[in-house]
Amino acid sequence: MKIFVGNYVLLYHTMNKKWLVKVEEEKKMHTHLGIIDISSLIGLEYGISINTTLNKKIYLIEPTIHDFIMKSERNTQIIYPKDLGYIAIRSGIQNGSKVLEIGTGSGALTTFLASIVKPSGHIFTYDINKEFMKVAKKNLVKAQLDEFVTMTDQDIRQNVNTVPHEFDAAIVDLGDPWTAVEAAYNALKGSGIFLAICPTMNQAEKTSISLKNNHFTDIECVEILIRNIEAREGMTRPSMRMIGHTTYLIFARKTFPFCQEYGNVIN
Amino acid sequence: MKIFVGNYVLLYHTMNKKWLVKVEEEKKMHTHLGIIDISSLIGLEYGISINTTLNKKIYLIEPTIHDFIMKSERNTQIIYPKDLGYIAIRSGIQNGSKVLEIGTGSGALTTFLASIVKPSGHIFTYDINKEFMKVAKKNLVKAQLDEFVTMTDQDIRQNVNTVPHEFDAAIVDLGDPWTAVEAAYNALKGSGIFLAICPTMNQAEKTSISLKNNHFTDIECVEILIRNIEAREGMTRPSMRMIGHTTYLIFARKTFPFCQEYGNVIN
Amino acid sequence: MKIFVGNYVLLYHTMNKKWLVKVEEEKKMHTHLGIIDISSLIGLEYGISINTTLNKKIYLIEPTIHDFIMKSERNTQIIYPKDLGYIAIRSGIQNGSKVLEIGTGSGALTTFLASIVKPSGHIFTYDINKEFMKVAKKNLVKAQLDEFVTMTDQDIRQNVNTVPHEFDAAIVDLGDPWTAVEAAYNALKGSGIFLAICPTMNQAEKTSISLKNNHFTDIECVEILIRNIEAREGMTRPSMRMIGHTTYLIFARKTFPFCQEYGNVIN
Amino acid sequence: MKIFVGNYVLLYHTMNKKWLVKVEEEKKMHTHLGIIDISSLIGLEYGISINTTLNKKIYLIEPTIHDFIMKSERNTQIIYPKDLGYIAIRSGIQNGSKVLEIGTGSGALTTFLASIVKPSGHIFTYDINKEFMKVAKKNLVKAQLDEFVTMTDQDIRQNVNTVPHEFDAAIVDLGDPWTAVEAAYNALKGSGIFLAICPTMNQAEKTSISLKNNHFTDIECVEILIRNIEAREGMTRPSMRMIGHTTYLIFARKTFPFCQEYGNVIN
Repeated sequence: MKIFVGNYVLLYHTMNKKWLVKVEEEKKMHTHLGIIDISSLIGLEYGISINTTLNKKIYLIEPTIHDFIMKSERNTQIIYPKDLGYIAIRSGIQNGSKVLEIGTGSGALTTFLASIVKPSGHIFTYDINKEFMKVAKKNLVKAQLDEFVTMTDQDIRQNVNTVPHEFDAAIVDLGDPWTAVEAAYNALKGSGIFLAICPTMNQAEKTSISLKNNHFTDIECVEILIRNIEAREGMTRPSMRMIGHTTYLIFARKTFPFCQEYGNVIN
Repeated sequence: MKIFVGNYVLLYHTMNKKWLVKVEEEKKMHTHLGIIDISSLIGLEYGISINTTLNKKIYLIEPTIHDFIMKSERNTQIIYPKDLGYIAIRSGIQNGSKVLEIGTGSGALTTFLASIVKPSGHIFTYDINKEFMKVAKKNLVKAQLDEFVTMTDQDIRQNVNTVPHEFDAAIVDLGDPWTAVEAAYNALKGSGIFLAICPTMNQAEKTSISLKNNHFTDIECVEILIRNIEAREGMTRPSMRMIGHTTYLIFARKTFPFCQEYGNVIN
Repeated sequence: MKIFVGNYVLLYHTMNKKWLVKVEEEKKMHTHLGIIDISSLIGLEYGISINTTLNKKIYLIEPTIHDFIMKSERNTQIIYPKDLGYIAIRSGIQNGSKVLEIGTGSGALTTFLASIVKPSGHIFTYDINKEFMKVAKKNLVKAQLDEFVTMTDQDIRQNVNTVPHEFDAAIVDLGDPWTAVEAAYNALKGSGIFLAICPTMNQAEKTSISLKNNHFTDIECVEILIRNIEAREGMTRPSMRMIGHTTYLIFARKTFPFCQEYGNVIN
Repeated sequence: MKIFVGNYVLLYHTMNKKWLVKVEEEKKMHTHLGIIDISSLIGLEYGISINTTLNKKIYLIEPTIHDFIMKSERNTQIIYPKDLGYIAIRSGIQNGSKVLEIGTGSGALTTFLASIVKPSGHIFTYDINKEFMKVAKKNLVKAQLDEFVTMTDQDIRQNVNTVPHEFDAAIVDLGDPWTAVEAAYNALKGSGIFLAICPTMNQAEKTSISLKNNHFTDIECVEILIRNIEAREGMTRPSMRMIGHTTYLIFARKTFPFCQEYGNVIN
């Protein structure tokens, strides 16, 4: 596969020295490993290497969504790949799903969700911060996923009736996720999945209590840890450094408060 | 959403008492919580609850892929959701990807991969064990994903030339994954992703060495841990029990052994 | 070293089949591995093996304090070796230390602490439950450590003035450890160490707040995890099973609320 | 307790800004928080605070063995408190124990062990590196524990016969710990404890195999992880940073290769 103008390339020197760049004409990148002539990449094959002006080898790697996330501009609210991967599989969100997101933030989670539900699914995302909305919109356009997302700058907790219904999943990424449990309940279909991002145990506890009080069941709270292993001949061991914590994740299923008595139905 | 004949339902009593059943006419399930009349579920809404003959409450939950995996018949080779989720995001496999699987096993990973790449992608899976192939085929048919998978009972390591090329990703799930590194290299496109499932540190070490010797770069070995949190009012803490280990995962990118000298291309 | 009447022996068959017994005359032990004639151990050397009546090999191991703890009768309040070891080194408790324990419980922690401070140190332990006191006394006598411990059935929080002062360390093992912070402060010497056992995050949080409000500094809260590794030729990996959580440990140092101005002292 | 000339003081500003100093006459310490007049500490009480010339508050804390270790000059071989604490309790080393150390290194572990076995126990430590020996000697003298340690610059693996016998415990801290298993076996008493520090899984695996081949039993390999918790009102969570790995620890008990037949002894 060849590299064209407009493509992204992960310039890989080592695990800790790599850059994600967009290929453009007449573009050069100055690094402490020497200058890299970005325009010279046009027409090259992904997978080959080039030399910098200081004769350092750089591999040309086609970036995956993982590379985009790890190289995105960091803010405190980044959701790590280990958490995104688990969210995807645990929530059952897939091609065609209809997902409600409460709290758009920088749009990173929105982008990831849109990449999963496309082309037949859709994300409806709500935030009261218009500045966040602008950034998120920009990120979605860049990733060419904006057509799968409807953004609304509204406090969904105050406007439950205007929100679409029968969602497959509702995802809450707010500082006070427990305040959005009722709105999520109303928007979900029966046995639909609720999910909240809870960096602290207090958020997890309050959200869990609110879920129990609002007819949710199968409530599960987890944390995902990733540990790097340095697999080297005769001296394999885990890395000395590790990320100690990112967030707790809480999942639940919407149930109805009424019960079908045994035997009533088949008669 | 209503339940019809042929649908699957997760019968949920508590975290540790739940069953995954297929809805059929005239079917009853006997449990120590009483009898559940499965045929009575027809026409009910997902999310409501029913009572067993012993008056125990059972919620009717629409199963996700997570529920299918956790309730699948267990063998030692099960790949856990925490690992599958990370494989999906880290490998960049998505709608449309062309994936090579070396080692079909029981087809659980094959099924998961097929659910991601459909409808425009495809999985080519190889195994030398015909019995495994039969089981895997059955599982794929049950999940209605068999049209996205081509199965071949062949040792791909001996037949490199007959394998399709330009794969986006190659996944190895064998006891000796390092023996398949060369075959995977030949089948991958430039900067394509290699991934191996390595339950032991020795497999991770040998595979890592083989990757270094075969022009792979960005080699990363990780383990994913999941910890359940019991989020309860005033007494929140992690669960006493935890799964200590499932597998290491090793990722790498295919690169070419030649280097484009600086300045050569644009002239 | 030979085994005498009154000694304890760890009868070791495998990691999961081992018993801790006291050697007595005319004692036999019936197990599903066959009968073990305990009186026949008298005069044997620690380290050799014997056969049961069913020809199963049993090693005679001299038990350490670790074996005593792991084989002690379990209740929910057991403090695991991983936690005890860290308590010992982090608190600086050693030969000669004077230690206050608030909450005697079953006396397991008391026994461990006494084994460290003897012969010149001393433990003063308080509990309001007389039944617990009896059990703890019995355990201390069995371990021949009762002379290093003074037990008082009193609520130390209501009787601060009658408690000895200038303790090197104060250890709280109550359900509501934050209520004992003030009493611990009064009993400690300047820069003395406070330590609380907090199974839940809520206890850790409340205790931490109380410590900040009571002139403690260097407040540190940790959890210790232990993971077993199955180190076997060519197939080394962590164990599948693991204890996910036991307790948080919180440490702090007593400081005084007044400050010596710079330069005042040396003049 | 008052501070005298020759005492050590932990000057504590915050968790990450603290210094361990020896109190001496006419000594000043220059820090970016201002100057601290060390000689002015003489006669003050541990636990009070002083101000620097820049008006920053510094608490005067009496250091524990934990503070000494965490503030010791770092080299790659430091053994962390979490590991030392577990070694102490798991090995059963206590007042009076006779311990063999193979590999003295910088003497940090030697110092810790000496602090436990004193006054009636003793450490016999062996190393072939005379430079290491000098550093270790200095550290032991500083900690006033040198009288409890006998140092020999000899390769114990070549001189098994000259080594004392009947050790309670043997501790190996070498790059190739498996080569010292036989020497340790000869030096230990029956059911005595073997322990090795193994930073990599390869060392753990090789040592484990050697132990199995040399009549050791109850072989256990573990790793200890410590996780800091930020316990703060309404926002309690684990720390973002964590040490991912230090070392594996392997324990075993010496047994004899002969078996006492059932019934033979009591006749």
